[in-house]
Amino acid sequence: MKELEERINKDGRVLGKDVLKVDSFLNHQIDPVLMEKMGEEFYNHFKDANVTKILTVESSGIAPAVMTGLQFQVPVVFARKHKSVTLKDDLYTSEVYSFTKKTSNHISISKKYLSSDDNVLIIDDFLANGQAVNGLNEIVDAAGANIAGIGIVIEKSFQKGRQLIDKEKIPVYSLARIKAFEDGHVVFGKEDE
Amino acid sequence: MKELEERINKDGRVLGKDVLKVDSFLNHQIDPVLMEKMGEEFYNHFKDANVTKILTVESSGIAPAVMTGLQFQVPVVFARKHKSVTLKDDLYTSEVYSFTKKTSNHISISKKYLSSDDNVLIIDDFLANGQAVNGLNEIVDAAGANIAGIGIVIEKSFQKGRQLIDKEKIPVYSLARIKAFEDGHVVFGKEDE
Repeated sequence: MKELEERINKDGRVLGKDVLKVDSFLNHQIDPVLMEKMGEEFYNHFKDANVTKILTVESSGIAPAVMTGLQFQVPVVFARKHKSVTLKDDLYTSEVYSFTKKTSNHISISKKYLSSDDNVLIIDDFLANGQAVNGLNEIVDAAGANIAGIGIVIEKSFQKGRQLIDKEKIPVYSLARIKAFEDGHVVFGKEDE
Repeated sequence: MKELEERINKDGRVLGKDVLKVDSFLNHQIDPVLMEKMGEEFYNHFKDANVTKILTVESSGIAPAVMTGLQFQVPVVFARKHKSVTLKDDLYTSEVYSFTKKTSNHISISKKYLSSDDNVLIIDDFLANGQAVNGLNEIVDAAGANIAGIGIVIEKSFQKGRQLIDKEKIPVYSLARIKAFEDGHVVFGKEDE
């Protein structure tokens, strides 16, 4: 998505070898007009996939997920993060390790809002090592639902998340694919690379 | 907002004397079409207030805030919650006590995303005792910014939050005002009550 790549070039900040800060338009301050365009872009890509529900994780996934849900006119569910696991019968739960923070979180969603009839589009802000997406996949599996696809705002293709998803043959669409950071700049790749 | 009141009657669950669960359309599963209408409603109410920025708190405030920001075509900033306070020079921070959870959280936003030029519309999902809104007010004050108004999705008018805001003469607009819970049902009030 050209407009997103331009925005990353303009406002993103590269920190070290593998961190991109986009808190001026995506995950702290949010540009709602850009979010709307992202929702349209995800819709155009997945519109024939019979999506019944959008699934994401709080908090940064919520804005792009809600804009995507608006296009599909389907409900959006966001998984909640917890430090500790409290096993409850009415929740689907999975564990997500954060390589950035070096801590484990549990994510959960209420069993009421995901069923075996659902065909789920997972939306998230970043794909790096694939931990969050993997946690959401586990939850969708536990519910007996199907994964229609995965929509990612920014993919860091040089980390292992994308490979893991491709191995499972789940359709993925990333609005921006980052091949590498070179001298503090972002090098983008294409969907077919 | 009639459609919201109808939705609360249909899908909200009253628990005990003062809890309303709306996790089927507002704060766990989200109805994006309803969120869009809420954004339009907030815009219609505050459109002449020269709003430059929308401010909310993660996670449940994000969806209505982003839809409101889309109408105003202004950036949305969500405050992050932390268990402990880490004083940092680059953050505006305030303390928020949760009566429901009986714990204190700190909320913070980066100083980069709020300035003395801003005229802020605060959006939140619930107004009960007014702790979250009060924390956001403190942050806006610390930035030297102005509060254009406060938009609330569901106000529990029998708790003290609304009174506190009215005392400060800040314009408030609540899409649904709950006067009382009677026999497990919701009794709505009007904006002029």
